[in-house]
Amino acid sequence: MGRSAFALVLTLALAVCVSPVERKCLLSGSWRSDTDCRMVVSTLEKDNRLSGFYLPGPAAGDSELLTSPLEGSQQDTQLVPQPIFYFTVNWRLRDSAAARTTVFLGQCYIDTNGEETLHALWLLREVADSPDKDWKATRIGTSIFTR
Amino acid sequence: MGRSAFALVLTLALAVCVSPVERKCLLSGSWRSDTDCRMVVSTLEKDNRLSGFYLPGPAAGDSELLTSPLEGSQQDTQLVPQPIFYFTVNWRLRDSAAARTTVFLGQCYIDTNGEETLHALWLLREVADSPDKDWKATRIGTSIFTR
Amino acid sequence: MGRSAFALVLTLALAVCVSPVERKCLLSGSWRSDTDCRMVVSTLEKDNRLSGFYLPGPAAGDSELLTSPLEGSQQDTQLVPQPIFYFTVNWRLRDSAAARTTVFLGQCYIDTNGEETLHALWLLREVADSPDKDWKATRIGTSIFTR
Amino acid sequence: MGRSAFALVLTLALAVCVSPVERKCLLSGSWRSDTDCRMVVSTLEKDNRLSGFYLPGPAAGDSELLTSPLEGSQQDTQLVPQPIFYFTVNWRLRDSAAARTTVFLGQCYIDTNGEETLHALWLLREVADSPDKDWKATRIGTSIFTR
Repeated sequence: MGRSAFALVLTLALAVCVSPVERKCLLSGSWRSDTDCRMVVSTLEKDNRLSGFYLPGPAAGDSELLTSPLEGSQQDTQLVPQPIFYFTVNWRLRDSAAARTTVFLGQCYIDTNGEETLHALWLLREVADSPDKDWKATRIGTSIFTR
Repeated sequence: MGRSAFALVLTLALAVCVSPVERKCLLSGSWRSDTDCRMVVSTLEKDNRLSGFYLPGPAAGDSELLTSPLEGSQQDTQLVPQPIFYFTVNWRLRDSAAARTTVFLGQCYIDTNGEETLHALWLLREVADSPDKDWKATRIGTSIFTR
Repeated sequence: MGRSAFALVLTLALAVCVSPVERKCLLSGSWRSDTDCRMVVSTLEKDNRLSGFYLPGPAAGDSELLTSPLEGSQQDTQLVPQPIFYFTVNWRLRDSAAARTTVFLGQCYIDTNGEETLHALWLLREVADSPDKDWKATRIGTSIFTR
Repeated sequence: MGRSAFALVLTLALAVCVSPVERKCLLSGSWRSDTDCRMVVSTLEKDNRLSGFYLPGPAAGDSELLTSPLEGSQQDTQLVPQPIFYFTVNWRLRDSAAARTTVFLGQCYIDTNGEETLHALWLLREVADSPDKDWKATRIGTSIFTR
């Protein structure tokens, strides 16, 4: 009886210890943006590089955009609990002549319930023909991602 | 002779006094951007409001844009030698159905020779049909203006 | 009886017709941002100029910022149901030496229930000492406002 | 004499052949920004990944920033003569507690003389403590790099 009580205490202690460990802001997995896009990080390497793919939502309103590869990196969660991350999406387009690239730069926040949220700003660039047309090549916006 | 010497001294004194006065960063007048647009501030009120017009350069690469009215404001140069300013351009377009607005936010810098330069960031917004298309409505860039 | 029934139908029809008219995206009134700031447009002129004040929320995390005047303009809702707007906030600071200005550029969207939402991007500029420090003068972000 | 004429022709032929090859917008090498920073791409892989380091100039006005590693990627110049590129700088700081990351997104332009210029927009993010302080975490600007 003493033994099972001890086991219970140990289990609880472990639960307490383990759960904070699980509450790390690791970007691996599937995320949904506030504009209904999906972002999937399928690989998160030991050196904190990440890769996956990005699915434009209906919200994209741009049937041209296809599911596209992403790659980037996040800060080490051993060092910072709420890491900065970036990733870039090289858009695959139905009309392959054009080229567009988005970079996201953001931070992963984690609340007291262990819920993670990604806040990011992004730049989206299209190809311009010459430097004097460069001024209109870049769009900007924000995205918030949740699990 | 004494009179002309006095006049000379007076002239020099005035020159010394006057030039710092002229070295104010007042936005009134005509400016040229690094992308070859012209920006003319025709009115600068006592309350530091300004108005004028903006001419897209050939660099705009957008024959749609016409000379358009601008209005804004700058900080009081009595208070700050290098004032922050903003102005907004409501674009007149050949195709009047569309609507575009640019806001410039910048600062006027003045060097030791009294040369003024305007450094600004701008946002350019087009009308979107609905909130879920809002993400792609805004472009961003910088402009540098000189006399 | 037939008459009162007709009157009822007419009243309902009018109600249906009229309410969408009243559901115009006019910025006048009080708005709350997604970061818990309050924005009050106290005056909306016939020429679509607007003025009011902006209250930084606790979210601002910056006890320095005080309630500050704003002014701007919106497109005419007679011409466009979902107008583009801009406004600028000249920040009043506890430490009056500094100077900061924010410009918001956005669009008012209205859904089928007549609910209005403002989507905006903003630039926030601090004074820099010289052009070579200009690079770090400007912050960027988005705000969403609801009634 | 025939030999030297042949050598001359050969030299000219090589010059003609080689120069177009050299006129590619490859980011490898050393670049200087309009704010006097230096950016060195020491490695450009076959898959168009690039790495190197970034030296903040005196213009940075921030003695905190140290020479920092960069990595990114550019489009294949076999496919596009004026490729889009991005790179990210994970800032090494004298005060190691803080963390800052910049992402650059731009395009390499090449003029008729074969002169290359990089036009980029960048986002610079600092760590924020919580989502409600996220609004002020991101700065924005542009950089132009030449050889």
